[in-house]
Amino acid sequence: MAQLQKKDAYNVAIAGATGAVGETFLQILEERNFPIAELRLLASKRSVGKTLKFKGKDYTVQELTHDSFKDIDIALFSAGGGRSLEFAPSAVKAGAVVVDNSSAYRMDDEVPLVVPEVNPQDAFKHKGIIANPNCTTIIMVVALQPLHAYSRIKKVVVSSYQSSSGAGAQAMQELMDQTKAWAEGKEIKAEKFANQLLFNVFPHIDSFTANGYTKEEMKMFNETRKIMGDKDIKVSATCVRVPVLSAHSEAVTVETEKEITPELARELFSKAPGLIVKDNPEKSEYPMPLYVAGQDDCYVGRIRKDISADNTLSFWVVGDQLRKGAATNAVQIAELLIK
Amino acid sequence: MAQLQKKDAYNVAIAGATGAVGETFLQILEERNFPIAELRLLASKRSVGKTLKFKGKDYTVQELTHDSFKDIDIALFSAGGGRSLEFAPSAVKAGAVVVDNSSAYRMDDEVPLVVPEVNPQDAFKHKGIIANPNCTTIIMVVALQPLHAYSRIKKVVVSSYQSSSGAGAQAMQELMDQTKAWAEGKEIKAEKFANQLLFNVFPHIDSFTANGYTKEEMKMFNETRKIMGDKDIKVSATCVRVPVLSAHSEAVTVETEKEITPELARELFSKAPGLIVKDNPEKSEYPMPLYVAGQDDCYVGRIRKDISADNTLSFWVVGDQLRKGAATNAVQIAELLIK
Repeated sequence: MAQLQKKDAYNVAIAGATGAVGETFLQILEERNFPIAELRLLASKRSVGKTLKFKGKDYTVQELTHDSFKDIDIALFSAGGGRSLEFAPSAVKAGAVVVDNSSAYRMDDEVPLVVPEVNPQDAFKHKGIIANPNCTTIIMVVALQPLHAYSRIKKVVVSSYQSSSGAGAQAMQELMDQTKAWAEGKEIKAEKFANQLLFNVFPHIDSFTANGYTKEEMKMFNETRKIMGDKDIKVSATCVRVPVLSAHSEAVTVETEKEITPELARELFSKAPGLIVKDNPEKSEYPMPLYVAGQDDCYVGRIRKDISADNTLSFWVVGDQLRKGAATNAVQIAELLIK
Repeated sequence: MAQLQKKDAYNVAIAGATGAVGETFLQILEERNFPIAELRLLASKRSVGKTLKFKGKDYTVQELTHDSFKDIDIALFSAGGGRSLEFAPSAVKAGAVVVDNSSAYRMDDEVPLVVPEVNPQDAFKHKGIIANPNCTTIIMVVALQPLHAYSRIKKVVVSSYQSSSGAGAQAMQELMDQTKAWAEGKEIKAEKFANQLLFNVFPHIDSFTANGYTKEEMKMFNETRKIMGDKDIKVSATCVRVPVLSAHSEAVTVETEKEITPELARELFSKAPGLIVKDNPEKSEYPMPLYVAGQDDCYVGRIRKDISADNTLSFWVVGDQLRKGAATNAVQIAELLIK
């Protein structure tokens, strides 16, 4: 397989079109003017008949079934792991290449796990499915890659500050509803999250595993190794939900084989694709999720020589997890395939 | 000096009585039934004449001057570093022992820096002034101490999630005002903080220093060494403001000389004063600032063997920074002096 057969325009399906990432797929495809012949929007039964706009035109959502993918070239999936496992093989059988945003296939040896700024070459090894990594991991590896290319990364300690929309559009709505309820003196309800998120933070994203880390934290450990192609990198993460609407932030401490000074790191980051350095402490300039939301690039700042260990750097990276952490990254993968 | 002369009750002054910590001093003194003969509330000129309640009685705020401390036994200062430097010596000259919540004297070799759960013995070495550590540092060292007592701590990497009231009562009010403004569709104003805090986080607490760390982060490095009496402990902190009203949270990774298993850490934490273990991942139980606010104890959870390094533990600790991080700790110091 590898690259797609050259065409002027491609038939694209979006599975999970009505979700937070699904709607972002539409925005990104439009913004990047992806060459689309037919656009097919797919979702579960309860969303059938809804209309979504793309380039000013209304598209009606159809039901996601095994027969949804006839003549589709590229299928972008973001409908949850269960639906990916169920329907992605049908899309592949129909001849489509699937870019899957769920965690279902990420650690499958037959499936490449791709961040175009890090391992674009892996995309061409696909057998029908390419996995899009975890959002928090994507944002981190975009910043790790230029360091790793200079000197091998040995270990990473990272704490995340993850926004509500990372848990979906309804979770983001819940934070806004809680905000309104508090302002109006009404009862604050928590249904999408186990706990009130307004005026709170909790160190719990995805479910817990036997070693005390959450699945989200273990994704950062395992996926970083696979994307960066280095089985020895060790990542210890603490993933925390914070009351932010969009964009994830991460405090990263990274140990490399050779020393990378902050000056050199700034230079390496500046030249790296998809990464913007915003690091002027004297002007109180550093990346913040409120302002990074809506942007495709990741922003890095607070770059400093770590004072707890040799050959260690600390920095702060922020990215829109619906865009670079999900939809933008998937569309970039599709762009690799049609280049 | 050391211990105060034994009395049935003591004359207590509070400098900065109308601030967030000042008002918490009053609550803590009342809750712990501190033996008070006379209570003198002091603040800057613009607060003079205000009344504050203590044990159901109104107290009128007087102006903080060099003559404010006649007959005072204990002066609790939380009026900012400048006022501590100006007025604490006058309090000492008048015969009072000062417990100072500002950063002004913390690193002074003549001034003990005390967390009663960690280094109570240091309190008795004072020469009139005892410094109360930085709030984020206090919460962390309460959790580090039981580990350090078992096996020496070599290094700590910590990321904080600090609430708005850590910047004072007006900063907390600003977050609430922003919340109301957003709900009402009005303009969101940021004056106390340089940036909007609602739906945002920023890695900037106190001002920046030459090495790229903020003063808040360097307090965690320097104060931890002084409190724990170990000049070799290395602490790398990233201090981040989050839209929480009260209580600071911290993701801590700590390397010790000997291995401390999570089971042993849980046992050591359980027996430690001022610390409550809340760590049941299977029941989604871990500390959260929304629920720790208003409590004197610090809460620890998410205890796990770190997967990035040997002899390393990761955990999550939360404490009310106005209470244990400030007022409670200061009153506990005063209690040591009258025991």
